[in-house]
Amino acid sequence: MGIKTREDYLASLKALRPNVYKFGELIEDVTTHPATKRVVESHALNFDAANDPEFEDLYTTTSKLTGERILRWNSLMQSQQDLIFNMKLKRQNYRRTGSCAGAVCVGWNAQSVMWAITHDMDAEFGTDYHERLKNWILGVQEKGLTVAGALTDAKGDRSLPPSQQADLDSNIRVTEIRDDGIVIRGAKLMIAGSAAANEIFLLPGSVYREPDQDFAVSCVIPRDIKGLTIVEASRPGDRRDLEEPAGMEVPNSGPTQGWLLLDDVFVPNERVFMCKEFKYTGNVITYFTANYRACIGGCFTVQGHVMIGSSILTARANGLSAKTFMGKLTDMSVKNQVTFGMGAGAIALGYKHPSGSYFADSITAHTNKVMVATLPYEVKRLTQEIGGGIVETGCMPSYKDFSHPEYGPLIQKYLKAGACSPESRFKAARLSEWLTIGGGVPGCMHGGGSPDGAKMVVKASTPMEEYVGYAKKLMNITEEIVDPPKKK
Amino acid sequence: MGIKTREDYLASLKALRPNVYKFGELIEDVTTHPATKRVVESHALNFDAANDPEFEDLYTTTSKLTGERILRWNSLMQSQQDLIFNMKLKRQNYRRTGSCAGAVCVGWNAQSVMWAITHDMDAEFGTDYHERLKNWILGVQEKGLTVAGALTDAKGDRSLPPSQQADLDSNIRVTEIRDDGIVIRGAKLMIAGSAAANEIFLLPGSVYREPDQDFAVSCVIPRDIKGLTIVEASRPGDRRDLEEPAGMEVPNSGPTQGWLLLDDVFVPNERVFMCKEFKYTGNVITYFTANYRACIGGCFTVQGHVMIGSSILTARANGLSAKTFMGKLTDMSVKNQVTFGMGAGAIALGYKHPSGSYFADSITAHTNKVMVATLPYEVKRLTQEIGGGIVETGCMPSYKDFSHPEYGPLIQKYLKAGACSPESRFKAARLSEWLTIGGGVPGCMHGGGSPDGAKMVVKASTPMEEYVGYAKKLMNITEEIVDPPKKK
Amino acid sequence: MGIKTREDYLASLKALRPNVYKFGELIEDVTTHPATKRVVESHALNFDAANDPEFEDLYTTTSKLTGERILRWNSLMQSQQDLIFNMKLKRQNYRRTGSCAGAVCVGWNAQSVMWAITHDMDAEFGTDYHERLKNWILGVQEKGLTVAGALTDAKGDRSLPPSQQADLDSNIRVTEIRDDGIVIRGAKLMIAGSAAANEIFLLPGSVYREPDQDFAVSCVIPRDIKGLTIVEASRPGDRRDLEEPAGMEVPNSGPTQGWLLLDDVFVPNERVFMCKEFKYTGNVITYFTANYRACIGGCFTVQGHVMIGSSILTARANGLSAKTFMGKLTDMSVKNQVTFGMGAGAIALGYKHPSGSYFADSITAHTNKVMVATLPYEVKRLTQEIGGGIVETGCMPSYKDFSHPEYGPLIQKYLKAGACSPESRFKAARLSEWLTIGGGVPGCMHGGGSPDGAKMVVKASTPMEEYVGYAKKLMNITEEIVDPPKKK
Amino acid sequence: MGIKTREDYLASLKALRPNVYKFGELIEDVTTHPATKRVVESHALNFDAANDPEFEDLYTTTSKLTGERILRWNSLMQSQQDLIFNMKLKRQNYRRTGSCAGAVCVGWNAQSVMWAITHDMDAEFGTDYHERLKNWILGVQEKGLTVAGALTDAKGDRSLPPSQQADLDSNIRVTEIRDDGIVIRGAKLMIAGSAAANEIFLLPGSVYREPDQDFAVSCVIPRDIKGLTIVEASRPGDRRDLEEPAGMEVPNSGPTQGWLLLDDVFVPNERVFMCKEFKYTGNVITYFTANYRACIGGCFTVQGHVMIGSSILTARANGLSAKTFMGKLTDMSVKNQVTFGMGAGAIALGYKHPSGSYFADSITAHTNKVMVATLPYEVKRLTQEIGGGIVETGCMPSYKDFSHPEYGPLIQKYLKAGACSPESRFKAARLSEWLTIGGGVPGCMHGGGSPDGAKMVVKASTPMEEYVGYAKKLMNITEEIVDPPKKK
Repeated sequence: MGIKTREDYLASLKALRPNVYKFGELIEDVTTHPATKRVVESHALNFDAANDPEFEDLYTTTSKLTGERILRWNSLMQSQQDLIFNMKLKRQNYRRTGSCAGAVCVGWNAQSVMWAITHDMDAEFGTDYHERLKNWILGVQEKGLTVAGALTDAKGDRSLPPSQQADLDSNIRVTEIRDDGIVIRGAKLMIAGSAAANEIFLLPGSVYREPDQDFAVSCVIPRDIKGLTIVEASRPGDRRDLEEPAGMEVPNSGPTQGWLLLDDVFVPNERVFMCKEFKYTGNVITYFTANYRACIGGCFTVQGHVMIGSSILTARANGLSAKTFMGKLTDMSVKNQVTFGMGAGAIALGYKHPSGSYFADSITAHTNKVMVATLPYEVKRLTQEIGGGIVETGCMPSYKDFSHPEYGPLIQKYLKAGACSPESRFKAARLSEWLTIGGGVPGCMHGGGSPDGAKMVVKASTPMEEYVGYAKKLMNITEEIVDPPKKK
Repeated sequence: MGIKTREDYLASLKALRPNVYKFGELIEDVTTHPATKRVVESHALNFDAANDPEFEDLYTTTSKLTGERILRWNSLMQSQQDLIFNMKLKRQNYRRTGSCAGAVCVGWNAQSVMWAITHDMDAEFGTDYHERLKNWILGVQEKGLTVAGALTDAKGDRSLPPSQQADLDSNIRVTEIRDDGIVIRGAKLMIAGSAAANEIFLLPGSVYREPDQDFAVSCVIPRDIKGLTIVEASRPGDRRDLEEPAGMEVPNSGPTQGWLLLDDVFVPNERVFMCKEFKYTGNVITYFTANYRACIGGCFTVQGHVMIGSSILTARANGLSAKTFMGKLTDMSVKNQVTFGMGAGAIALGYKHPSGSYFADSITAHTNKVMVATLPYEVKRLTQEIGGGIVETGCMPSYKDFSHPEYGPLIQKYLKAGACSPESRFKAARLSEWLTIGGGVPGCMHGGGSPDGAKMVVKASTPMEEYVGYAKKLMNITEEIVDPPKKK
Repeated sequence: MGIKTREDYLASLKALRPNVYKFGELIEDVTTHPATKRVVESHALNFDAANDPEFEDLYTTTSKLTGERILRWNSLMQSQQDLIFNMKLKRQNYRRTGSCAGAVCVGWNAQSVMWAITHDMDAEFGTDYHERLKNWILGVQEKGLTVAGALTDAKGDRSLPPSQQADLDSNIRVTEIRDDGIVIRGAKLMIAGSAAANEIFLLPGSVYREPDQDFAVSCVIPRDIKGLTIVEASRPGDRRDLEEPAGMEVPNSGPTQGWLLLDDVFVPNERVFMCKEFKYTGNVITYFTANYRACIGGCFTVQGHVMIGSSILTARANGLSAKTFMGKLTDMSVKNQVTFGMGAGAIALGYKHPSGSYFADSITAHTNKVMVATLPYEVKRLTQEIGGGIVETGCMPSYKDFSHPEYGPLIQKYLKAGACSPESRFKAARLSEWLTIGGGVPGCMHGGGSPDGAKMVVKASTPMEEYVGYAKKLMNITEEIVDPPKKK
Repeated sequence: MGIKTREDYLASLKALRPNVYKFGELIEDVTTHPATKRVVESHALNFDAANDPEFEDLYTTTSKLTGERILRWNSLMQSQQDLIFNMKLKRQNYRRTGSCAGAVCVGWNAQSVMWAITHDMDAEFGTDYHERLKNWILGVQEKGLTVAGALTDAKGDRSLPPSQQADLDSNIRVTEIRDDGIVIRGAKLMIAGSAAANEIFLLPGSVYREPDQDFAVSCVIPRDIKGLTIVEASRPGDRRDLEEPAGMEVPNSGPTQGWLLLDDVFVPNERVFMCKEFKYTGNVITYFTANYRACIGGCFTVQGHVMIGSSILTARANGLSAKTFMGKLTDMSVKNQVTFGMGAGAIALGYKHPSGSYFADSITAHTNKVMVATLPYEVKRLTQEIGGGIVETGCMPSYKDFSHPEYGPLIQKYLKAGACSPESRFKAARLSEWLTIGGGVPGCMHGGGSPDGAKMVVKASTPMEEYVGYAKKLMNITEEIVDPPKKK
């Protein structure tokens, strides 16, 4: 069995039942429809890399289960180096696609998280989830699949737990347990890369208590499973994806997010890895966010690198030397490196779970999430500052106008600024726009959870009273000093 | 003669020759075409306000020339209060439109700038520009017109002055002087509100020296003048403007920028206010930027107010209390108020020109521009933080999907979060998106010039050696201390 | 009656009863003791300026009460220009002293505040406070005094109102009302410039309700009044003030704060301007903070100017060109100008009280306070960055070592960096240190109240629901959308 | 041979020749003189920890050379874990001392740097430096010494290389090579912990070329070597160190920096590890800064922790609940963790040198330096914000006043705020002051080199053209686009 190729991958997607919609229409073939072909291309590039001698060490690895050569995103992460490779794969990926490729990311992480969780659940409950998961992983490794991951539920009224929602479907739940499997319903929202995935790994979306045990469910479903409808989300710039010729207004790669609508979907037992064991949902979130928020630096660092490249390009296309902006470009580089360095630090400070899975240090990973919700915005701002008005507010006509037979030549005449062709200037400006205010903007803020959530973890992880102890000792203060009592 | 109404205004636009294009097509009627009707509506709202007893004191004033009641944006600004009213009119405008309405802004400012410049040029050269301008102003006041303003040329190779460009058309220039007028050609780019303007006020785009005297030209042209083609610029989200029903994905108002392509346009003498007097181009830029960058706070303060409103709305629509975000909302309010307060400060520290025009303090105005290029980005970031994922990366399906007969109800079901209808949540999220990453983003960064340019003014306005003197005096240092000589 | 001179001023201080202590000792003469002579010098420079033709227009004005020429800091502020002059006087002052001169600042402000408050109290209660205040002002104008102002009480347990404190002295209060005056006791803390003041203007330290009416007191006391003990506060660098020769380690001017300990002080009726009228304490705080926080920009702008000067000086003394740091110096200038511009803006947006007093716009003034608690810190950081290690952490020996007969010459030898004498380099480095981490650091953070207090005013002044209305109108959202009800 | 104790350490310092001066006087015993006893105590605490079962695993390790148990700061760093332990030792150290202890830091780092450099020099030049170094290390390990490290020269005119200085002593240089050793002269400035060191490790202060080969010197000297005079530097707050009773105004531990004046110091060959091999000075700087700037996070993270503790303490001592400031405290925790996490990341991304030494990743380490020059300033600002006025500007009398027999009780009365004794409030406020504006402020900005230097490394390490390549590929731009040629 060899490493799958782009062609294998595209064929596997074409073979799926069409169940993805956008702009009110069913997409017959996600690999060719302009609304989804970019995200598919973003993933196909991973198969190219896996078959490229230059990148194969990064994009493939040896299965810890079989010793076979497998796609790296189908492998278990059991060491610092495995997690560093996760960061580096994302980094390499963003370099070539300009943005996010969700189906070689969240599902990969989910696999190692559930590897640990199933290990612990089996020990406590005598279940066989770990073996099920292992068997599923073996299959995925053999078939060389892309697997999206899905956490976020619709949630409904956020002040109420799932079991008290007016609409119980607001969170994915088990509605029926059969001998051979379970039936689930509900929705998972904003699922990155779902249109480009072969399968989708579902995790519980939050920490649940006993009354909400029906919502404690983890399983994997094929993307075209019966009962699943996917509606692609829409962002301001995405109608540009529909323009012809492709590649003028936006790159030929890029991210998408989908809404997964599950209408009584039957999942056979061998694909179910948690069913009502609510007690372990806390650890699912803890392990998942630690690794996800550590490795997220791989993404934002390198989208920042592309912004540096795009900024130099627009500067030159505007007729200016990149040296003019060297201070800003260096600041961008500093801001970029923070999230990558912090990610590596969270990994270096991490620990190994008894199951073999390796998890990053929590407080460092969550601090990194806060940085990711801040620094890329500053890098974008600098990209717009360097790029000039034609980058910032779309102060440039469309490519339809650029290529208009009558006045198009005038647009081009006035786009000429010395250093390159009008077309290159047009494209460079559109790239900076796409990266900062267009379709290439990934979810720095809320992807993988909100910074306020991360801050809550930082707060909980900060031993404030221990720090008070240091201060007291330094000044030899011995009396007890506590918060004043609440006044009535 | 009474104050013109929305109907008068729309009729005046309909009467113009169609010469505005977008997406490769001629727009027959800018008042109804979806690509331009929003910017027209943004301006029409000004006529409504001018005829509304609640706002008439703000939107109308007494002509200093005739004593007649006129539209305020057709009035000369000759006092602190006049400039404060400019800020307040923009502020009120943004409240109702959510963004920029260029044709009641730049042309208004240009009029007072040229009032001073023509006064000074006439004194030096014995020309009659001031009288021409006065007559034109009288006409505009009587007719109650909207007037866009145009500074930015195509520029070409930025390291070369206009007269050394390979293509002399890279900057607007006088190609012929006739007895009855002048012929000009070239282009003005990124001109806000041009599609909604009756006329366009041209100013020189930079400071010119003698060899570039052909480029020192100021005049006013009707929007549909012979030889003028306007191509509307395109931004990521603007194809949403074309969607039906209108008002779901984006507001019914909003900004546009156009490229003005001038192909040997004849301008009669009575509309020409500068022709080759290169020596005064420096003051045009100085006066214009001082007032523009002082008053710009009126815009960004209140777009920030709308972002506060939209943030509260999305929070509630997400099922959360606005109180949860009170710290962030207060920070937004602080950041908003800086640009308004600084603007008022620049005005308070300003001065009156012998012609009567009042100009804001330069260093304060340019400092304000630097703030405007920074703080609104932070307010947007907070808007996305409060709004959650459905605001940030367009993680919400299109309205076509929302209203799809089959799966639309499911989209709506999962959008339900307790506090309001799914439709309101959809709209609120789209508004925050439009304000932060969509079509409502105005040009904080480069509108009215770049922050680096503003910093150059700040640097030049900072008496560094005087400050060295304070330091030396404080420590009683008497020896001369200068920069080391350059080493060879 | 002419404008008083430095000599008059020093004589007036020498005539006072010694009641100022520091480091455990009574200061016999504040004008010569090294712990207080710098703050006295900071004030004496104001008398110099008032008698200097170059500055007399700024430092003196015409009394609105008598038409006589008076010291400006003894005048009522009744217009925009009066307040702008307040900013400009502080600015000029900081230029020559490097820091704060409290006794020509808070008392001046207090006078105009109480001018309005007494006007309103008299109208409601039929009291004669306004006339008393007027008479006192007439005396001060004639005598040309310096007047510190005192708001901050010791406070005790901050969660309890004054009347419920275990120690009622925690806030200044009226303990006895006699026919001819009142007796007060308590303490006012951190009172800037008290050692250099002829008199001290007491204001209530907070907003009080009826049970706390004993604490609603405003009056003026001579600095050496019977029962008053002043203890000077100590900051890290202030022992350098005691070194000889003076002027090497620190400038010869500079700020101090004192603790005023009032032990049953009798204040005659003609000096009492509020006694138990608790209802007006809210307006005292409102008026005082608006003007104080507007004008505070005059201080921090120009201390930033001195930091620019000191930074250029240290750069050159280090052997580097100031041009190396031009980007940072320009950033410093931008940050400096914000607080001045905002202050002017708060004034421009202000209003006139029926009594004649002019007050700045509240939200803008409080926003300015938030800026003042942030931006000067960044300017200091840049000062340390430019100055190098000898500025940052005191990595330079003392002047005692610099001038040591044996190894002093070696210190000087190794301080030589090309551009100036070792002594000038020593002094320049010490100045930057003094400004950023030494005795010259004024109270950006808590002076005039804390930024969190200012944010509370900003929050209260932000019409959040009005802003929600703008957002709803833009998207044509008509349903009512409110915060979710609190869950039980 | 056992691990040395505090007593051993203090005895070893007492045995040294007195050659340390401050405030113009010779310090006879650095272990008891108030100007130096704090920095000695900071180091003595390390010996305590090394003999404390709770900390011995951190503070001691097994010698890679002998297998003996040694003090960790005398060990070679040859793995990720070794460097992580460096960070953790510093972190633990700062917790107990509040600031920097230089003689268990820079010398430790220098040893591993020169381990690699001597390895490479020997290979190229056939020298025996590595063996010399090894022997010296063996001695240090056996004797359990503290070793400061010294890089920064006086420099003189920074625009000239050492060999062209007017005064050749501006940089440490070899003036004579004898059979048995070398003679050096010059000065090393701002050397942390020199007064508490047994020995001092000298490294070249910059990258030198052939004409400057005399300045390429590395060796170790005893702190009391003949010809060496040390003058302690002075910072604003350090005269508080001299106050009695100790421990009221400042902690009993704390940092110092010294100027080392070398007047023809003879260093025997066995202590010389580089002599004129200028070619390797580049790598000395590269290796040293990478490890130093990676591990620096250990320091600033935990000084930030102490600031959190001190902030909570002051809040409570002020009578407020720490909860009031939870948002700020969490922000502080986030900012703290960045530098620690980035440091661990730089280590995780590092590499092993053929000699065995392990070095951190350069771009990440230098990015960390930029963070260290920024974030601690924000943490300090927040500490002052939380602490209130008595923390910010020293608005509190001295302890001499606090304990004054007459008015001291009044000071204490008015310091009472409910939660603790006046003395504890006094001490807590002084601690926050000491940490933010007093003697405990370490050199975040310039310690270990300036952030501008770090940015130059980041710039040089950023493959800008590679990033341009990504951008071009994304938009399929194939033409070459370069900077415009310089105009003449």
